[in-house]
Amino acid sequence: MKIHNFGAGPCILPQEVFKNASKGVLNLGNTGLSVLEISHRSNTFQSIFDQTKKLVLELMELSDVTHEVLFLQGGASSQFALVPMNFLKQKALYIDTGVWSEKAIAEARNFGQVEVLKNSSLEGYLKLPDLSIIRSGNYDYVHYTSNNTIYGTQFEDVLKTDCPLICDMSSDIFSKQIDFNLFDLIYAGAQKNIGPAGMTLVVIRKTFLDELVESRIIPTMFNYQKHIEKSGLLNTPPVFSIYVAMLNLTWLKEQGGLLHFDSYNKKKSFLVYKELERNTLFTPKIHIGSRSNMNITFDLVNQDLSSDFLEFSLSRGIHGIKGHRSLGGFRASLYNALSLDSVQCLVENLNVFERKYVD
Amino acid sequence: MKIHNFGAGPCILPQEVFKNASKGVLNLGNTGLSVLEISHRSNTFQSIFDQTKKLVLELMELSDVTHEVLFLQGGASSQFALVPMNFLKQKALYIDTGVWSEKAIAEARNFGQVEVLKNSSLEGYLKLPDLSIIRSGNYDYVHYTSNNTIYGTQFEDVLKTDCPLICDMSSDIFSKQIDFNLFDLIYAGAQKNIGPAGMTLVVIRKTFLDELVESRIIPTMFNYQKHIEKSGLLNTPPVFSIYVAMLNLTWLKEQGGLLHFDSYNKKKSFLVYKELERNTLFTPKIHIGSRSNMNITFDLVNQDLSSDFLEFSLSRGIHGIKGHRSLGGFRASLYNALSLDSVQCLVENLNVFERKYVD
Repeated sequence: MKIHNFGAGPCILPQEVFKNASKGVLNLGNTGLSVLEISHRSNTFQSIFDQTKKLVLELMELSDVTHEVLFLQGGASSQFALVPMNFLKQKALYIDTGVWSEKAIAEARNFGQVEVLKNSSLEGYLKLPDLSIIRSGNYDYVHYTSNNTIYGTQFEDVLKTDCPLICDMSSDIFSKQIDFNLFDLIYAGAQKNIGPAGMTLVVIRKTFLDELVESRIIPTMFNYQKHIEKSGLLNTPPVFSIYVAMLNLTWLKEQGGLLHFDSYNKKKSFLVYKELERNTLFTPKIHIGSRSNMNITFDLVNQDLSSDFLEFSLSRGIHGIKGHRSLGGFRASLYNALSLDSVQCLVENLNVFERKYVD
Repeated sequence: MKIHNFGAGPCILPQEVFKNASKGVLNLGNTGLSVLEISHRSNTFQSIFDQTKKLVLELMELSDVTHEVLFLQGGASSQFALVPMNFLKQKALYIDTGVWSEKAIAEARNFGQVEVLKNSSLEGYLKLPDLSIIRSGNYDYVHYTSNNTIYGTQFEDVLKTDCPLICDMSSDIFSKQIDFNLFDLIYAGAQKNIGPAGMTLVVIRKTFLDELVESRIIPTMFNYQKHIEKSGLLNTPPVFSIYVAMLNLTWLKEQGGLLHFDSYNKKKSFLVYKELERNTLFTPKIHIGSRSNMNITFDLVNQDLSSDFLEFSLSRGIHGIKGHRSLGGFRASLYNALSLDSVQCLVENLNVFERKYVD
């Protein structure tokens, strides 16, 4: 039976990527060496490294003249600290859309003043705050999380501000066409649309580096400038994660790039939301206008059916749809590599489950 | 032609590990899922995680009652900062054996007073300092690097001190039988005898956690205590690196554990040093008493033969013996997974190369 992996991350990558990665572990491009045993100072790795950087910039329609690309470690969680450590002098504005931005805010408060904008109405994190009120201010930067995996919320448009703009794009990077040039720093844990866990992508506008904090002593490994000075190879990088990212971004490009995935991902999520709206047993958690195309959260109207639904889904090959432990309910993640076929299977599953109880 | 990988790291791992890792990338233990797409909150991953921790403690003959095991990211280079950030209150003693300890010292100086013990004689880093003079002192801890990959030096015995003892074992961990219970904190980048790059092992004695700095604000991801509170799963861990570490440590145990590799590695390095002493074309860089069993550095008496020797070696399948760019010459790394067969091939290669010029 085919398994449909709707997990929130680490998540599905294309089968083609798994196959090539598996080959590389045995014999990397007929070098006779495993990708796991090559030196990070070898020409073989350098060309993987360069190619991955190039693909990142190409997909983002950015240039290496204006932007730096780093492949770091420690996940977005480490960037929560690195961003303020490197750039927070006085005051920053953070948009609070729940768990991930809350964590980022907590780390930033260790380094300076943090103003927070959130939706404080009853809906809490199930509805995104209105960002149209952000104009300008004396902020070192404005920070937001473009997609929240836990609640299933996503900003459709890029936030508009006159201040430097920083975004945690961990869970929706490369899933749609946006103007990446609007950001001064973008970071993302790899384990959704980039590659396997263990690598963190950071893209920084070079002119933004003029704004680096000078008065603070920053450990070498947490200092963006030090990584850049060593062309991103300050120490041994996560070789395998970068290699698989290269395979995956190549696949992404070959499929038609971000323009393709923009419409493909919208189509997939549209089908699921439509079914959730129609189906009398289920209801989507998130308000229209705040809904994510990556992570769709929903509830059973009658929660007593929960374990029955999970079991029923599993028996049909549908994996990873249990909601986040902090929120309950269900969550279907529709990252780039999840096929329309899998989505149709989920929709049918919701449909058949309804008939089981309603008929 | 068989390739003999003498690279300094990321380095050779057992072929059996490559084979199993390659399978896991396609289908992990018949789950139908790739190890690259499983959730770090799944039972499948939890059991890999627990098993890897168990193997670490078993090989070290330590108990989870007295010790904590963490799988972090960012390499030993990040630990250079985390150690003083978490444990340096007033003053620490660092043994300086060259590049790696120098980097650790530079990071520690940001957080407190650092005293340095080094070999300041003419030999510089080619001869290890005499550690017998370290008795006790008002040090928060004593820190040393057990093996230096660049120069090819290695302490045979564990440093003796009354102070808490911290060791960077990146390049010789699990290569020999030692009393791991003598240390309060051990850290090691994975990419030698543990697994692929992208994971850093940290083992901490629980009672040493009473000595954590309290007055300093430490970002969550750089705070050992916070990782321990979340049982090592504070954020998404480097799933694949941990999985391969499990495969490799299982192999290590099955081969006979550290007792086996202790004698096996001594035997391998003995053969190479013996040939280097005998061979009229070559000379080992390091003084007897300071020589590493992991990384053997050597020179050609006539340096004009360098590129000829490298080419000659490559043509016989011998890879990765070019010396570190900062030191020149040659370096053969004999990590656990490098077979006696490969060592014999290297020795023969040195021998045949000699005959080519001397006969």
